[in-house]
Amino acid sequence: MKILLTGFEPFGESLFNPSQLLVNAYSPPALAEITISKQILPVDHDQAPKVLMTALQDHQPDAVLSFGLALGRAKISLEKVAINFKDYRIPDNTGITLQDQPIVVDGPAAYFSTLPIRDFLTKLNEADIPAEISLTAGSYLCNQVFYSMMHHIAIKDLPMRAGFVHLPALPKQAAQSAKPVPSMSLEQDLQGLQIMIDALMEPAIGQNLPAYP
Amino acid sequence: MKILLTGFEPFGESLFNPSQLLVNAYSPPALAEITISKQILPVDHDQAPKVLMTALQDHQPDAVLSFGLALGRAKISLEKVAINFKDYRIPDNTGITLQDQPIVVDGPAAYFSTLPIRDFLTKLNEADIPAEISLTAGSYLCNQVFYSMMHHIAIKDLPMRAGFVHLPALPKQAAQSAKPVPSMSLEQDLQGLQIMIDALMEPAIGQNLPAYP
Amino acid sequence: MKILLTGFEPFGESLFNPSQLLVNAYSPPALAEITISKQILPVDHDQAPKVLMTALQDHQPDAVLSFGLALGRAKISLEKVAINFKDYRIPDNTGITLQDQPIVVDGPAAYFSTLPIRDFLTKLNEADIPAEISLTAGSYLCNQVFYSMMHHIAIKDLPMRAGFVHLPALPKQAAQSAKPVPSMSLEQDLQGLQIMIDALMEPAIGQNLPAYP
Amino acid sequence: MKILLTGFEPFGESLFNPSQLLVNAYSPPALAEITISKQILPVDHDQAPKVLMTALQDHQPDAVLSFGLALGRAKISLEKVAINFKDYRIPDNTGITLQDQPIVVDGPAAYFSTLPIRDFLTKLNEADIPAEISLTAGSYLCNQVFYSMMHHIAIKDLPMRAGFVHLPALPKQAAQSAKPVPSMSLEQDLQGLQIMIDALMEPAIGQNLPAYP
Repeated sequence: MKILLTGFEPFGESLFNPSQLLVNAYSPPALAEITISKQILPVDHDQAPKVLMTALQDHQPDAVLSFGLALGRAKISLEKVAINFKDYRIPDNTGITLQDQPIVVDGPAAYFSTLPIRDFLTKLNEADIPAEISLTAGSYLCNQVFYSMMHHIAIKDLPMRAGFVHLPALPKQAAQSAKPVPSMSLEQDLQGLQIMIDALMEPAIGQNLPAYP
Repeated sequence: MKILLTGFEPFGESLFNPSQLLVNAYSPPALAEITISKQILPVDHDQAPKVLMTALQDHQPDAVLSFGLALGRAKISLEKVAINFKDYRIPDNTGITLQDQPIVVDGPAAYFSTLPIRDFLTKLNEADIPAEISLTAGSYLCNQVFYSMMHHIAIKDLPMRAGFVHLPALPKQAAQSAKPVPSMSLEQDLQGLQIMIDALMEPAIGQNLPAYP
Repeated sequence: MKILLTGFEPFGESLFNPSQLLVNAYSPPALAEITISKQILPVDHDQAPKVLMTALQDHQPDAVLSFGLALGRAKISLEKVAINFKDYRIPDNTGITLQDQPIVVDGPAAYFSTLPIRDFLTKLNEADIPAEISLTAGSYLCNQVFYSMMHHIAIKDLPMRAGFVHLPALPKQAAQSAKPVPSMSLEQDLQGLQIMIDALMEPAIGQNLPAYP
Repeated sequence: MKILLTGFEPFGESLFNPSQLLVNAYSPPALAEITISKQILPVDHDQAPKVLMTALQDHQPDAVLSFGLALGRAKISLEKVAINFKDYRIPDNTGITLQDQPIVVDGPAAYFSTLPIRDFLTKLNEADIPAEISLTAGSYLCNQVFYSMMHHIAIKDLPMRAGFVHLPALPKQAAQSAKPVPSMSLEQDLQGLQIMIDALMEPAIGQNLPAYP
């Protein structure tokens, strides 16, 4: 099984992005029948989706796990839905702010994750990794990349599962903030990622794309 | 202009529902060229959408403003999107709990509100009524009614604008809770509703259904 | 009965201070056997306590109700305790920031409010005014004024009850913020103040200073 | 240097108490010139202070680090102040609920921690362990034990530093909750404890009891 992992560069006031550190740090267990490819995305409204599309074409993965930071969330957020809406509260790293715009003109309003997020949720929480299903990935670049990816897979009818996962801040980000920011360690992120990958590799799940997760 | 207002009966631990009280209390200013119809919906997964569809047929409104309670929110939440997903954390008033189900099998993943919510947001905040655009209406009956309504309007190609608005708890609900629940008074809700209705009646907005809000 | 009401000028990013507006707007019901005096305090670490002490001397009140803003709180916060600690996160209006300092060198660690806050709590919530007993008035100027006042009353052995009450943001403050700031209307603040004054005037409460509330 | 560590048994809906697990799991580095004693306290309004007093007498520590759980907090909370107030929202493990009572009749309103909490804060955050100074330890058994301990030390004039530290929920507690509960791993708690102990052993701090934090 080929799995593509993506993360983002730091943005806004954050000097780190746990999604970047997680993707860079992950290596699969020895002997696992799995090929991992990785892509770090720029926080650039124009380039981020393009870099991801190129990675999809280059690696032809069976599944894509896209990660981003959601500062303020306390648990690993398994995103349910990507919406066709760009509305940035803070500028991206190129300085651009967008309001009330579609990501794809005339595209559908939304796509659901095709990852087995309920299964992920159960397995993560059983392993003491706090997780939750989230009903909004926001309207910033994370949602934009998520929607762009799902739209690309849909219109090309690609045989791959894909979805987006938001990570809490890292402890060092919380430690540098005067606010009561919740955090999760990179070790927990790595355990969580392994659990999600293991779930994807289970035969019953890995070989079929369910009509509805 | 014909406007249909809907609210919900109380549910869960709440003895009141601000959406019901708001809809019941509202009366348009004298001389306004407007016809208001009202429908209170039962908190019943099966009946709520049906009662709403019947009201749409009976009243043939130009616009529908659907209201519900979002205990814990601090501002009037102008909902951006309804998703094709039922996942109840608490039972409805018939005792039913649903998990991971589509509202309409093979329906699209989501519909956007066709109300001018950005215009509502600006006008509400200018009038000192705290408001926000919300990216999730949850996965309970509020979202279900919102999605069902938008789907019905879409497949019947009805010439009506529609959307959903979540209200904060009432002060008496906050006063009865030991938790720090934010609240908004019924007077503020009523002012907010009048502002939204006035915005709908502006010629530039009222006469055209924009392709994208 | 003579009651002194105090509020604060605006500070930080806020253009308004509900405590100032409340105190300025309040007038007692006709025929009430009550004398109200008012004092607005500057947000100045040095002047605020001095202005309050002068007001205590000038007006010789039976009770002092001091009000301040606690942006982010959802309910009227009846403060239990003032602590001998100054630790400002934001500068006062003179630009001063203080860290880890006592308010009164060798003063006791804390004073409790001598207002009947449990009685206030019950009566406010019964009247649908959301209220709570708070265990911290912070370490900014509100706590400093509260502590300074209680210390002054204690060392002078003055026959007066006194305490501090934090108010939520006003709706217009919440409407101007992009964050989900809870709010309470000035009308609710005024109703709440009248309830507290009525409670103070009840014979059983007004004539005795209980050893412990 | 002799250090006493205390933690609490589980209470309320929690099956675990990170303070118990932390105290039980800690062992000092080899060669450290330190004697660690440990005491787990029952969640019993009557017994908890007595068990702690006995431990103080038995072990005669130079410093006491008391730990408890604060479910909902995101960071290690270095408590500034213990107040003479018992007001339980939930019953203790003997089923008792108390309201509006002093811990020590005619005791002072509060005691400040005599631990170097500002120094702890700086060192914890520098080590990427999220920490904060907290201005309220609540009005439940944690505050009661904290106040009882400080009062005992004060009236006996014991030469020991003491204070209370609240810990966030453990990841497994957050994983078992449907709510967005922040958490911190036991590994982080252990690192944090070692940092606090190291700070206590620094000559400049360890040998003198400062008049003020």
